[in-house]
Amino acid sequence: MFFEETGFADRMQGVSGSAIRAIFNLLSQPGMISFAGGMPAASALEPDVVADISQAVLRADGVRILQYGATEGWPALKQAAPAFLKNAGVEASPTQILPTSGSMQAVDLLLRALINPGDVVLVENPTFLGSLQAMRLVQADIRPVDTDDEGIIPEALEEAIIKYRPKAAYLIPTFQNPTGITLTLPRRKAVAELAAKHRVVVIEDDPYRDLCYSGEKLPAIKSFDDSGYVVYLTSFSKVISPGLRVGALVADDPLMAKCIIVKQAADTHSSSLPQAIVAEYLNRGILPSHIDSICASYRAQLEAMLGKLAAFPEGVRYTRPRGGLFVWVWLPRGIDGTELLQRAIERKVAFVPGASFYCDGSGVNTMRLNFSNASLDIIERGMDTLREVVQEAVVKNR
Amino acid sequence: MFFEETGFADRMQGVSGSAIRAIFNLLSQPGMISFAGGMPAASALEPDVVADISQAVLRADGVRILQYGATEGWPALKQAAPAFLKNAGVEASPTQILPTSGSMQAVDLLLRALINPGDVVLVENPTFLGSLQAMRLVQADIRPVDTDDEGIIPEALEEAIIKYRPKAAYLIPTFQNPTGITLTLPRRKAVAELAAKHRVVVIEDDPYRDLCYSGEKLPAIKSFDDSGYVVYLTSFSKVISPGLRVGALVADDPLMAKCIIVKQAADTHSSSLPQAIVAEYLNRGILPSHIDSICASYRAQLEAMLGKLAAFPEGVRYTRPRGGLFVWVWLPRGIDGTELLQRAIERKVAFVPGASFYCDGSGVNTMRLNFSNASLDIIERGMDTLREVVQEAVVKNR
Repeated sequence: MFFEETGFADRMQGVSGSAIRAIFNLLSQPGMISFAGGMPAASALEPDVVADISQAVLRADGVRILQYGATEGWPALKQAAPAFLKNAGVEASPTQILPTSGSMQAVDLLLRALINPGDVVLVENPTFLGSLQAMRLVQADIRPVDTDDEGIIPEALEEAIIKYRPKAAYLIPTFQNPTGITLTLPRRKAVAELAAKHRVVVIEDDPYRDLCYSGEKLPAIKSFDDSGYVVYLTSFSKVISPGLRVGALVADDPLMAKCIIVKQAADTHSSSLPQAIVAEYLNRGILPSHIDSICASYRAQLEAMLGKLAAFPEGVRYTRPRGGLFVWVWLPRGIDGTELLQRAIERKVAFVPGASFYCDGSGVNTMRLNFSNASLDIIERGMDTLREVVQEAVVKNR
Repeated sequence: MFFEETGFADRMQGVSGSAIRAIFNLLSQPGMISFAGGMPAASALEPDVVADISQAVLRADGVRILQYGATEGWPALKQAAPAFLKNAGVEASPTQILPTSGSMQAVDLLLRALINPGDVVLVENPTFLGSLQAMRLVQADIRPVDTDDEGIIPEALEEAIIKYRPKAAYLIPTFQNPTGITLTLPRRKAVAELAAKHRVVVIEDDPYRDLCYSGEKLPAIKSFDDSGYVVYLTSFSKVISPGLRVGALVADDPLMAKCIIVKQAADTHSSSLPQAIVAEYLNRGILPSHIDSICASYRAQLEAMLGKLAAFPEGVRYTRPRGGLFVWVWLPRGIDGTELLQRAIERKVAFVPGASFYCDGSGVNTMRLNFSNASLDIIERGMDTLREVVQEAVVKNR
């Protein structure tokens, strides 16, 4: 046989690929209702607007867009980003902003710049499985920190910092993936202080902030950072288009310089056309009204999903997020989310079993439900089916 | 000070960033003549064609383009690529093709999938410095193999394989970057046989093949591979647009599966719009005539540069490529290419000093000259100036 397993690098051991990406390939089955993925609604995407903008930027600046660009990113995007970041309370100049191929790439660049095999990275438990996979690929020692319904617990974070001497802590403080939980204001300040005090890089991954359906938008952890130890990641995937793959990393030198060196070898630079499209989208001033419009839909979809969850069997618990894309569900102990998915898929409903979001093998009885990419009607039908599947599992589990 | 140097990962040690990328930032100076970079001519880029194609694909398939896509790549590009690859003698089905963010990303994915710190990677000396940087970031032990004017020497390659037990060999067999040298047909067969015999992955990086100005196009090393140990990389950067960042990796499972796992964490997937544009560009059948047109210009530019080099001082040697983007120059011993660049930049001419293309600190007296991104007039003026700068260095060196 070609290529014995021993031929691969050690970093590949035990990295089996994303559960979401695997489910992704199932979703094309006809009639499948998907609460998996973290996809925007098709109606939230604007091919005509993007076609028009694409045409406009290529007519205006096409040779530069099609030529090699700087690793540091498309100038117009670096110029437009500060005003966008200000909405999160993040002050940054263009040189502190590195456009990336989605915020996934920003996570990967930071980990490669910072982490040796065995270095500790602290995470919320559960957390985004794509980032866990990137951590495994740098052979990080991933350690969970206790969270509650107000997000990561600062006292637990400090305890873990003292105990494990981590290089970094990775947090999604706003409408977290997968739980939907939001870190409170006093805790945001506390996390920024801990980063500075203990010289731990806090990677603040913040792609969901603008998908806010009720309550106040909180300033980013980064807005409380004077030390440079908080690195801020943003993304245009959830508000403009995930397929364009445009995100950005906000950091100071010398960390920024190291990320740029890694990016040179990773892809030379991100594709300029998507960056130019996002820059022009921002410059046209059409993002705020687009966000209002998608939030109106997503709010109704979230409410429909929560309404249906209220009728789920006793012993099922779930989060009640005020933004983002996900509701998180704890099933009664003894019910395995992965087995439940098999039953659900037979009935044409898909979700992501929660276990893959945990760094420590726990969370077997959890699942992540996405509500953004299903109409109200589909949510009602899909959730009715899912309730029946859960009900059957509860009965079997007795 | 924020962030002591010790805070970074070991893989960052001694990786100082690309010399080309640093020079890139100088080139915007007014009046600067650049033989640096490996950029297509501005006239080779087609913003109107790309604008039209971009519009067309977004109108036809915009929601899918703007939505999350599969890590495995944009389906239409995977479908269109086999016919393109056939020109190189490479037979591949869509599942054996992974679109990447330029072939730079393909190199990076392969190295991360294969290389542990200390594993040997064999290279031509000199070779593409971006790939050397990617190798340093995985802490490869980079070993040079002897080459001559017919490319890498198979006997030297086999000797190095036996001596160093490498995981991989990285080769640019056609119109090599930086030398412009092309591996001969018998040697291509020999390299494919060595890959299979010794179970060494040969990474065949082949972005320049279509920029052929005289003589025969040779089939890829991959075309002689039955073992799966030859991995083929192609790129649309040199024939359509580098700024779009679209390349592809051709490999079999299980190596392909590992590359996909790394890519999930690296950027989830490459931006779909550039992939869809390249697919449609291929499907419209307009690439062959475009290649003919740019080759006609580049051929004349190459000849102009070689004509001017004939008048350089005695003791200057250079390659006479029959394709690609670069001429390679050996200066008389004692002349330092980096010092020469300082003098040349004062006179508004830029090139890339050759030393950074060597993995072993040699090649101080070399330089790489690019001819594709300068008009005949500019080439004549720039080369006259460069000849004077070299002449002065020769006199000083006596």
